[in-house]
Amino acid sequence: MKPTFSVRLRVFNLNCWDIPYLSKHRADRMKRLGDFLNLESFDLALLQEVWSEQDFQYLRQKLSLTYPDAHYFRRHPIQELIQHVYTLNGYPYMVCHGDWFCGKAVGLLVLHLNGLVLNVYVTHLHAEYSRQKDIYLAHRVVQAWELAQFIHHTSKNADVVLLCGDLNMHPKDLGCCLLKEWTGLRDAYVETQDFKGSEDGCTMVPTNCYVSQQDLGPFPHGIRIDYVLYKAVSGFYIYCKTLKTTTGCDPRNGTPLSDHEALMATLYVKHSPPQEDPSPAHGPSERSALISVLREAWTELGLGVAQARWWAAFAGCVTVWGLFLLVLLCVLAVGGGAREVAIMLWTPSVGLVLGAGAVCIFHRQEARGLCRAQAELQHVLRRERETQDLGSEPHLAPS
Amino acid sequence: MKPTFSVRLRVFNLNCWDIPYLSKHRADRMKRLGDFLNLESFDLALLQEVWSEQDFQYLRQKLSLTYPDAHYFRRHPIQELIQHVYTLNGYPYMVCHGDWFCGKAVGLLVLHLNGLVLNVYVTHLHAEYSRQKDIYLAHRVVQAWELAQFIHHTSKNADVVLLCGDLNMHPKDLGCCLLKEWTGLRDAYVETQDFKGSEDGCTMVPTNCYVSQQDLGPFPHGIRIDYVLYKAVSGFYIYCKTLKTTTGCDPRNGTPLSDHEALMATLYVKHSPPQEDPSPAHGPSERSALISVLREAWTELGLGVAQARWWAAFAGCVTVWGLFLLVLLCVLAVGGGAREVAIMLWTPSVGLVLGAGAVCIFHRQEARGLCRAQAELQHVLRRERETQDLGSEPHLAPS
Repeated sequence: MKPTFSVRLRVFNLNCWDIPYLSKHRADRMKRLGDFLNLESFDLALLQEVWSEQDFQYLRQKLSLTYPDAHYFRRHPIQELIQHVYTLNGYPYMVCHGDWFCGKAVGLLVLHLNGLVLNVYVTHLHAEYSRQKDIYLAHRVVQAWELAQFIHHTSKNADVVLLCGDLNMHPKDLGCCLLKEWTGLRDAYVETQDFKGSEDGCTMVPTNCYVSQQDLGPFPHGIRIDYVLYKAVSGFYIYCKTLKTTTGCDPRNGTPLSDHEALMATLYVKHSPPQEDPSPAHGPSERSALISVLREAWTELGLGVAQARWWAAFAGCVTVWGLFLLVLLCVLAVGGGAREVAIMLWTPSVGLVLGAGAVCIFHRQEARGLCRAQAELQHVLRRERETQDLGSEPHLAPS
Repeated sequence: MKPTFSVRLRVFNLNCWDIPYLSKHRADRMKRLGDFLNLESFDLALLQEVWSEQDFQYLRQKLSLTYPDAHYFRRHPIQELIQHVYTLNGYPYMVCHGDWFCGKAVGLLVLHLNGLVLNVYVTHLHAEYSRQKDIYLAHRVVQAWELAQFIHHTSKNADVVLLCGDLNMHPKDLGCCLLKEWTGLRDAYVETQDFKGSEDGCTMVPTNCYVSQQDLGPFPHGIRIDYVLYKAVSGFYIYCKTLKTTTGCDPRNGTPLSDHEALMATLYVKHSPPQEDPSPAHGPSERSALISVLREAWTELGLGVAQARWWAAFAGCVTVWGLFLLVLLCVLAVGGGAREVAIMLWTPSVGLVLGAGAVCIFHRQEARGLCRAQAELQHVLRRERETQDLGSEPHLAPS
C-alpha cells in the first residue's frame, strides 16, 4: 500500500506573543513574521498565542498564496481536525496570570502526504510564573497527561506523529518526562545532528529584548520550553536533519519576532527496512522509567488534590461563616441597636458569601479534575506493573 | 490475526438518578440495582449520574466479585481509558438546572476480547428543560459534535464501537442525527428484531412514579433519550439480538430503579464474510444526508454564537454602566450631598460590576467554544462537498 519514498518536512514553530494591549510592537512583528513565513515557505507553520483574531485573519490573508490550507495555516491539505480543551488551566481569580481566561488547548491536524498519515499536534500549556513556588504544577502535570492521552488515543492510525508548541516545561520536568515516556515522542533538539541557534537550544533567552531577567528566574542564560517532538509509528522512521532557533534578534532588522525564539526543523520521513523496527517494544528499562514517572505524577496530583480540597473546605467555612454573619446582621437591623452599621455591612456580607461559595465550587471541581487524571494514571500504572510482573510480555498483552 | 469467533455481549445501561439530597429513595434503589446487576451478571454495566462517590464505592464493593474490573465496573479487563470533558455545558448562573456544576463528559474504555478491540463509550449530555424554549440547544449540539469527533478520532484502531448513555435527545433531534451521521453508529432499538419493554422504546415513561408529567412536557406517553448505539468497523459485523427496557416498575418490588428506564441489550459480534462489507462506503445519499445535517448544525451554532455575543455585549454594557455609577457615587460621597445613600449604594454597585463582568467573560468564552465547533463543522463540510463534487471518490480521497 505505502509507496516507497522519502518525505521532507520543514516545520516552523513559534509562540507569537500576540496579546492585544499587552504585547509590544504587535503589528510590526506580525508583519515581519508574515514576510518571513512567505519567504521561507515552510511545509507547516504552527503558531501559538495568536490571541487577536484580527491578526490571525491578517496573517491568513497575507499567507494565503504560500500557505493556502489554513486552519491556522499550512501547505498540505488538512484531512481532519479536532481540538481538546484542557480541563484544568489555572484559577479564574488569578487575573494577572490570565491563563484561565484564554482556555488552553491542543489542536490536531491530520494530513495525508502521498499515503502517509501525519498527525500534527500543536499546543500551549499553562505558564510557570514562579519555579520556586509553582502553584500551577499539578495543573501543568494534568495538562501534560491529557495531552499525552489525547495523542495516545487519537494517533492509532497515524504513521508519523509530530507535536510542536510551548510546553512551558523544562526538558527534565515531570510533565515533560510523563509526556515523552507515555507517548514515545522524541525531542528534535536531542536527536538532531545539526543544531544551530541559541545556547543549549533555549527558546527564552536573555538577548531577546522582550525577555526580562525576572522571566528567566534562576536561569539567567535562558530556558528551553518550546519543542518539536516526533515519532514514527509503523514501518516508517523519522529523523531531524537540522534544527535551528532564532537567537533573540531578527537577523535582518531590529526587534525579535516574539518573546520566544522560533524553532525551525527539517525532518525526513522514510520507510524503515523491515528488519529494523523503528519503535522497539517496551523493554524492561523503558517500562521501569515509565512506571517511575507515572508514580511521581500520581504523587504530585495527590498533593494537588489535598491542596484543592483544603481550599474548598476553607472557602466552604468562609461561606458558612458569612451566612451566619448575614443572619446576625438581619437580627441587628430588625432589633434596632446598630441598625445603620448592620445595613451597611449587609451587602459586603452577601458578596463574601457569593465569592467564597464560588471559590469553594471551583476548587471542588479542581479536585475532581485532578482525581480523574489520578484515576487514569493509576489504571495505567496497574497495567504496566502487571505486564512487568508477567516478564517480557508484549505491551498490549491480552488478559 | 483475528480468530474466528462469535462474541456475545450483554450490556446494561442506566441513568441512575443518584443525586445526593435531591433523588428519592437513593439507598434503597442503589441496593436493588446492585442486587439486580449481581443476579444478571452482565458483560458491561454502564451507569450514569452516580453523583455520590459513596454510592459508587458501595456498588463497586457490592459488585466486586461479579464485576471485578471496575472503573465504574465491568467484567472484561480494561486495557485503556480516557475521559473527555465537554467544553460547553450550560450556564453557572442557572443554579436550579445544575448541569454546569457536574461537568458532563464522555468516558472511553478500550477492551480486548479474544483479539477483538472493543471501544466502549459512555456519556451523559446536557438536559433539555424546555422543548419549546430550549436555551441549551446549541450547547447540546456542540456536545453531540464533540462526542462524535471524540469517537471518530479515538476509534481508528477499534473493531467494534459501542456508545451507551443518556443523550437527552430524541431520536430525530439535530444532535442525535449529527452524531449518527458522522460516526456511522446504529441505534439498537431501530435495528433489533426482538424488542421487549416500554412503548416505542421510551426511557422516560409516565408509569414511572419518579417521572412527572412536567418532565415529559408535550410527550405524555414518554420519550426515548437513552441509547445503545454500535457499529463494527473492519472485517466484523455486530447486531442486536434482543433489547429490553424496564417499564416503570421493578418487576419484583416497589419503586423503579431510577427515573430513567434501564436498557438491556444482547449484542453479537461476528466475523463478516469477505464479500460482505459491513460498513458500506459512503454513497451519495449518505453523503448528502451528512452534508445536510452538518449544515443544519452549523446554522444552529451560528444562532448560538449570535446569542452568546449579544449576552456578552449586554453584560459588557452593564459593567461599563456600573463603573460609571461607581465613579458617580464616589463623587457624591466626597462632595457631600447624598453621602449616606452614595455609601450604601457603593457595595451593590461593586457587586454589579463584578457580576456583570463575570457574565460577560463567560459568554465570550461560550461564543469562542461555539465558534471552535463551527470551524470544525465547516472544515468537514468543505471536505465532504469537495468529495461530492469529485463524484464517487472514496471517503478519504487524497487531494
